[in-house]
Amino acid sequence: MSTDPLVIFTPSGKRGRFAVGTPVLTAARQLGVDLDSVCGGRGICSKCQITPSYGEFSKHGLTVAPDALSEWNSVEQRYDDIRGLKQGRRLGCQATVQKDVVIDVPAESQVHKQVVRKRAEARDIVMNTSTRLYYVEVAEPDMHDPSGDLERLVTALRRDWDLPALEADLGVLKTLQPALRKGEWKVTVAVHLGDAVFSPRIIDIWPGFYDGTIYGLAIDLGSTTIAAHLCDLRSGEVTASSGIMNPQIRFGEDLMSRVSYGMMNPTGSDEMTAAVRDGMNALFAQITEEAGIDASQIVDAVFVCNPVMHHLFLGIDAYELGQAPFALATSESLSLRATELDLNLHPAARVYILPCIAGHVGADAAAVALSEAPDKSEDLMLVVDVGTNAEIILGNKDKVLACSSPTGPAFEGAQISSGQRAAPGAIEHVQIDPATKLPRFQVIGSDLWSDEDGFEAAIAQTGITGICGSGIIEVIAEMRMAGIVDGPGLIGSAEQTGSPNCFQDGRTNSYLLYDGTAQDGPKITVTNTDIRQIQMAKAALYSGARLLMDKFGVDKVDRIVLAGAFGAHISPKHAMVLGMIPDAPLDKVTSAGNAAGTGARIALLNTDARKQIETLVHKIHKIETAIEPRFQEHFVNASAMPNAVDPFPILNSIVSIPQINHNTGGDRAGRRRRR
Amino acid sequence: MSTDPLVIFTPSGKRGRFAVGTPVLTAARQLGVDLDSVCGGRGICSKCQITPSYGEFSKHGLTVAPDALSEWNSVEQRYDDIRGLKQGRRLGCQATVQKDVVIDVPAESQVHKQVVRKRAEARDIVMNTSTRLYYVEVAEPDMHDPSGDLERLVTALRRDWDLPALEADLGVLKTLQPALRKGEWKVTVAVHLGDAVFSPRIIDIWPGFYDGTIYGLAIDLGSTTIAAHLCDLRSGEVTASSGIMNPQIRFGEDLMSRVSYGMMNPTGSDEMTAAVRDGMNALFAQITEEAGIDASQIVDAVFVCNPVMHHLFLGIDAYELGQAPFALATSESLSLRATELDLNLHPAARVYILPCIAGHVGADAAAVALSEAPDKSEDLMLVVDVGTNAEIILGNKDKVLACSSPTGPAFEGAQISSGQRAAPGAIEHVQIDPATKLPRFQVIGSDLWSDEDGFEAAIAQTGITGICGSGIIEVIAEMRMAGIVDGPGLIGSAEQTGSPNCFQDGRTNSYLLYDGTAQDGPKITVTNTDIRQIQMAKAALYSGARLLMDKFGVDKVDRIVLAGAFGAHISPKHAMVLGMIPDAPLDKVTSAGNAAGTGARIALLNTDARKQIETLVHKIHKIETAIEPRFQEHFVNASAMPNAVDPFPILNSIVSIPQINHNTGGDRAGRRRRR
Repeated sequence: MSTDPLVIFTPSGKRGRFAVGTPVLTAARQLGVDLDSVCGGRGICSKCQITPSYGEFSKHGLTVAPDALSEWNSVEQRYDDIRGLKQGRRLGCQATVQKDVVIDVPAESQVHKQVVRKRAEARDIVMNTSTRLYYVEVAEPDMHDPSGDLERLVTALRRDWDLPALEADLGVLKTLQPALRKGEWKVTVAVHLGDAVFSPRIIDIWPGFYDGTIYGLAIDLGSTTIAAHLCDLRSGEVTASSGIMNPQIRFGEDLMSRVSYGMMNPTGSDEMTAAVRDGMNALFAQITEEAGIDASQIVDAVFVCNPVMHHLFLGIDAYELGQAPFALATSESLSLRATELDLNLHPAARVYILPCIAGHVGADAAAVALSEAPDKSEDLMLVVDVGTNAEIILGNKDKVLACSSPTGPAFEGAQISSGQRAAPGAIEHVQIDPATKLPRFQVIGSDLWSDEDGFEAAIAQTGITGICGSGIIEVIAEMRMAGIVDGPGLIGSAEQTGSPNCFQDGRTNSYLLYDGTAQDGPKITVTNTDIRQIQMAKAALYSGARLLMDKFGVDKVDRIVLAGAFGAHISPKHAMVLGMIPDAPLDKVTSAGNAAGTGARIALLNTDARKQIETLVHKIHKIETAIEPRFQEHFVNASAMPNAVDPFPILNSIVSIPQINHNTGGDRAGRRRRR
Repeated sequence: MSTDPLVIFTPSGKRGRFAVGTPVLTAARQLGVDLDSVCGGRGICSKCQITPSYGEFSKHGLTVAPDALSEWNSVEQRYDDIRGLKQGRRLGCQATVQKDVVIDVPAESQVHKQVVRKRAEARDIVMNTSTRLYYVEVAEPDMHDPSGDLERLVTALRRDWDLPALEADLGVLKTLQPALRKGEWKVTVAVHLGDAVFSPRIIDIWPGFYDGTIYGLAIDLGSTTIAAHLCDLRSGEVTASSGIMNPQIRFGEDLMSRVSYGMMNPTGSDEMTAAVRDGMNALFAQITEEAGIDASQIVDAVFVCNPVMHHLFLGIDAYELGQAPFALATSESLSLRATELDLNLHPAARVYILPCIAGHVGADAAAVALSEAPDKSEDLMLVVDVGTNAEIILGNKDKVLACSSPTGPAFEGAQISSGQRAAPGAIEHVQIDPATKLPRFQVIGSDLWSDEDGFEAAIAQTGITGICGSGIIEVIAEMRMAGIVDGPGLIGSAEQTGSPNCFQDGRTNSYLLYDGTAQDGPKITVTNTDIRQIQMAKAALYSGARLLMDKFGVDKVDRIVLAGAFGAHISPKHAMVLGMIPDAPLDKVTSAGNAAGTGARIALLNTDARKQIETLVHKIHKIETAIEPRFQEHFVNASAMPNAVDPFPILNSIVSIPQINHNTGGDRAGRRRRR
């Protein structure tokens, strides 16, 4: 045996000696090397491609001769002729071991390949899907030993693929006999490998070798928008992404108005359920058309959503979520059939819905936790998903806490006098000159600042229409740094601030950002009421984070991750000037983009991740802000910008925030400050 | 401890010492005594009724004092006032142990109670249903420790009932929150305890204590008729029984013509599937109306059927079953949701279909095996289910063999000149006087013989319309014993037989059984073609049995069980004279009635029985008669009455069968006999 050739696989480093003539695929399987194959080594699927390395490998004490593997054979030749094999590649099931050899398994030939995520700090996703394709050759029926066609198929799957006892969907039973005979007893099957609810099951069958793929959907079901990523369940790649507005918006912009609609109308809850499911099917039609596939190729779908959407999607009245004690009907993850939710996918498609954390902290927050993995972090991470409700997670590998805080829609530009959704024409970046106290700004759709040449032309198409959420953060933070607004949130007069753009506006002052009235455009101002709205929202966010820090027993965090579409556009410095997030080094404040959607994608591509998040959700300490006495205290302190009591030393080392007070006595802010 | 009172339970004999004040239910549970309770000992459900015994128990060395149990309490009093408690009964959860006591658990208080079957030799059914009711008190939601309502319900079910992790049906999730609140956190749930396919699952919920019951259906889906028993899943009792004609009859009387219909018509298979499912729902409507219940109270249904009906019911084209090698799509048992088969039962109702044995030996035969349990028999049992196809099982506790044989419809009166289905007016019993060679008979609807006073009046309403299957057996056997027909099956002439009722009828002779032409009635005769039909049918049956005996290595059996409706009416002696069944003592030939239906009922009431039959089916040796060379030889020999070679010694010791030959040379029977 010891004179048999040595085979070393990279990157795993697994090694063993194999008899001359052993196929590389066989050697890989015996060593437990992760080398893919759908056809089981029959030279059909080409998934087992490997790259032999030749020459000196001093590290292994090995020289690989040019004839270390068998010669290129007719199966490889045929595949190369038809499909083309990359330079240096061989088919692992055809090439056999002849002499000592080093064999590289390229990423795309691994079953559990890693899907690369864009951000550098994020872990890659390891492929481990719920549903996979298997090719088998099935024994023909024998009257001397009668058995069902399904039973012989299952036997073949066990023999070739080590699959457990499998059931078959009724739909498969209907097509099983013709498929076996058409494929001359060779078929490809799609197998759902089972979970806590479903036993392992054959969900589709094709005669012969099925050269196609199967797909899954990762869906972030938000209150306002529904976003879906269509993923290839073999490669893990995102084939298409698409989104629609949540059709439930017609029942109410925010969640609580939808809960109310359900309470006020006997059929309200059912209407909203039908609306969101219809919307989902419209989205599926849109994304499958975009990708040029049929919805019946989609066999798995993972959903993340907040608790109210969770209940309304499942057909559960959200009434209890509208009032204390905010009891969820169920908080655990759900495995369902797509048909149970009236979803038009593969007839046997499965649906997985991530667990909710608590009555206000939903499956979307769980998805953020899965994506950002605070539980695996050495650093103490604060993860904030900013939306109408902020979900806040604080933790490290020792402990994870979570809460939600009702920030309201101000961060999305709603309830702000010149606010608007992020869209071309919206002001998104603002600077105020510390000397002149005059503003300049950028609008979505152009990279030019408003005082640069060509700006007018650049925005001619869109105009300047309002301020989006991230613009609001910036302008108020700039106003605070320029001394136009004081700590308690009062805008000074032109005299107090030295800015000609401050003007009296009723009982308080406003700040003029842009006057387009000469061009029939809007007059864009920041009013003191706008400031109050943002103060309320940011105080809710900060006090939630602060409460978790209390519970954790810390007064600072190592890292801050801003999740959500809004988080992607926010300026960390400006957010910190407002006191929206705790004091931290600016380079430790990062955006995770749509982390909830990413969490959904992870759970779609890796079923182990489903178990991970189910376990983590049980371990997370849930904090209900409504019943925490300190929350109110934190909230009041956080109304000031950046904060009435918390010092923000790192922020103050970077920027100068004037200690001023525009209050001349008698108004609300003044009273509050004297407390 | 040893001075604590001794508690002895009967009939189990389990005993133990318990502290004074221990409730009897608690003592029973700790000892593992099978004492029912739905409410968990809260004095609500009254399922834990027990009967204390007082006085001397020399066998136990015990005297039970009148105050051995605590005094009658207010809960028992209230129950007695409202519902009435049987004399001597106590509620096990209320009565506490005070002194040494002997306590009897009556049958109806046992969870795993035995349901008594009618026949003396049949084992009783032990209750162990798939779905049960549980009453629980659930913790209220707590904002300090947020959790879903479902999770607290599941926790309560685990705590009180030791149930595993449970899922809930979507329908339950919808009604869960209102039910918990309406019931003030007390609810009753129906739990499907899970099987190989389904994880344990809550399928229904009621606020407070649900005083009703849940039902199951045992369904024998035959080619001609569909019969259902509605069973109370708590008591095991049959609440109602009903049957309808199989609506598929319009596509073909026999199975092969239905297979052909599916082959000839593109939508034929789907039409037949829709027809049988519609028929099933009509049957459910009929049986629930009869029982005065709602179909939504039916949570489980067990089906038995032959392979063709099995496939057509499941929506699988039966094409492959119409030709060698007779491959089933699947032979294993199936666990499905009723909705998958479009059945209108409880929305979460489950369906269990027994496994098939082979392509010609279906789930109905498996049900017969379950009911008659040859695998548990010391005696070598031959079980024959006679229908269009005969399913034949031979075995004892060492080994079981099975085959089917195509008897055709002759035994059901079809293809017989005067044949008809068993119905009022049909001749069912016949005697032929050995001296006069003249017949007398009984018809269905009257107990009088045709030569008895009052016969004419008794049958005036129905008339005499034909001969049913069992009547055919009797008249031909009587003709054989009277020498009117010979061994090869030839009817003699009046001269040869000495019977004035024999008359020439074309090239052969016929025998007149009844001439009603004077009263505008039919002339009922037995033609030589009728004899040939029965010879073919009985030869098929006998040769199948004989083949199994060959394979078993025996030439006689200890017992014969005739299953099926036809088997219930057949005369063992006459069947044996024809050589339809092997030679055996007549008192060892018994009828099992609708054993397939009984098997379905066993599988409905006892889920362990499902596992038993699944295991047994794997162990049964399947014999395909079509490929067994000896089958033809046995068939030819079995064409003679009783048999050309097998001696039938026991039969010959009881009756005298004349060794005659009516052949005068040149006809087919003569040629065959000379072989």
